[in-house]
Amino acid sequence: MPRYKIIVEYDGTSFAGWQIQANGLSIQAELARAIEALSGKRVVPVGAGRTDAGVHARGQAAHFDLQREFRPETVRDGLNFHLRPSPICILDCEIVSDDFDARFSAKARHYLYCIVNRRAPLALDRDRAWHAPVPLNEAAMQEAAQQLIGRHDFTTFRSAQCQAKSAMRTLDKLEVTRKGDDLFVETSARSYLHHQVRSMVGSLKLVGEGKWRIEDLRRALKARDRTACGPVAPACGLYFMKVQY
Amino acid sequence: MPRYKIIVEYDGTSFAGWQIQANGLSIQAELARAIEALSGKRVVPVGAGRTDAGVHARGQAAHFDLQREFRPETVRDGLNFHLRPSPICILDCEIVSDDFDARFSAKARHYLYCIVNRRAPLALDRDRAWHAPVPLNEAAMQEAAQQLIGRHDFTTFRSAQCQAKSAMRTLDKLEVTRKGDDLFVETSARSYLHHQVRSMVGSLKLVGEGKWRIEDLRRALKARDRTACGPVAPACGLYFMKVQY
Repeated sequence: MPRYKIIVEYDGTSFAGWQIQANGLSIQAELARAIEALSGKRVVPVGAGRTDAGVHARGQAAHFDLQREFRPETVRDGLNFHLRPSPICILDCEIVSDDFDARFSAKARHYLYCIVNRRAPLALDRDRAWHAPVPLNEAAMQEAAQQLIGRHDFTTFRSAQCQAKSAMRTLDKLEVTRKGDDLFVETSARSYLHHQVRSMVGSLKLVGEGKWRIEDLRRALKARDRTACGPVAPACGLYFMKVQY
Repeated sequence: MPRYKIIVEYDGTSFAGWQIQANGLSIQAELARAIEALSGKRVVPVGAGRTDAGVHARGQAAHFDLQREFRPETVRDGLNFHLRPSPICILDCEIVSDDFDARFSAKARHYLYCIVNRRAPLALDRDRAWHAPVPLNEAAMQEAAQQLIGRHDFTTFRSAQCQAKSAMRTLDKLEVTRKGDDLFVETSARSYLHHQVRSMVGSLKLVGEGKWRIEDLRRALKARDRTACGPVAPACGLYFMKVQY
């Protein structure tokens, strides 16, 4: 019974998120539907990250087992055929060993958060980036971001609904760069708490606006208190870019 | 009676094109509606380029006159308010002299054409780029593109519906570059014939696929015959980037 690993791109705008839900269309349910159409069997794929409603992916990873052995290219092309017209596509597919687990084998997860920093609203980047009309100081954001690097209790930056037992996480990268009106926040960690990236970005934006000093961000982290967090950044700016195994 | 110049961004997917039409929603009509909502007067803006249905803009330019003098920021923000929820926005607005004409004063028009060159279909870039599943040789495309630089009769690369009296145009730039799976074709000219950019890109793609040699592109140009052109590239990959005055 071969195990397949797939790399998935999706536009999260019209979905209730990665995970199968009672109400609302999910990426996972759409993939299960396509896998069943291809293989004739009901199989639910396991994803590397359970992205929220509106969050996009350029490189989500998932695995699933099929009873029959198909060539990886057949699985990729067959799933892409059955996924149409959903805005979900399989970029790559390979056969992996039975002990590979898209969720638990992950060594690093990379996210990108996009902000468009200009007065005018968004036309082409609507649902694709966070519109920030007030000028942001990206150098201050970048300096502040370094306060969050390393192993910390991220209670401040996790959703009240977060089900993880521990709030300890190790953040390996949090880089803020600008290209014209576009601000990018790149992050890397083995794993995150629920809403962690969007919570960190929301607080960094306060630093960028000059409402918080770097010291305020450090104090928020140390507070280990959800109410110390800035407003959570919207889902539409977040992209799940890559998983390293 | 002050004259205003505006810079406009739009997602062309849902529009019948720039120009006001009997059937179908146009960018120009949406702008005229917003200008009337702001000023109380019916005014139709003059654009630098009449983009086709599905073509996007990051920097279309247009001008119009208002009887009353508003501050440019008021016009920008007021139009953006009245344009909602259309995927059109005003990036910039300034008062210009009466002899400024968005169409006839233009010295150079810059377009960008985006191709995603990979086997998998598009999810995030759907309606935003041309999907080319066959591997493209961008170096061959770049070399071939240089055959079109300069002053030529571009009859081969213009639509049968093109109404320009002369097919002579001067192409200043046609650059093909790749970044990962993304191919970019950047072009610059004072003006273009109808469908010229998409016709050139469609023929360059044949070179990229190895179906045409550079010599075939040169021969197509020299033929001055519309039937010598490759299949026209789809509108969704084309972006009107900037106008120089």
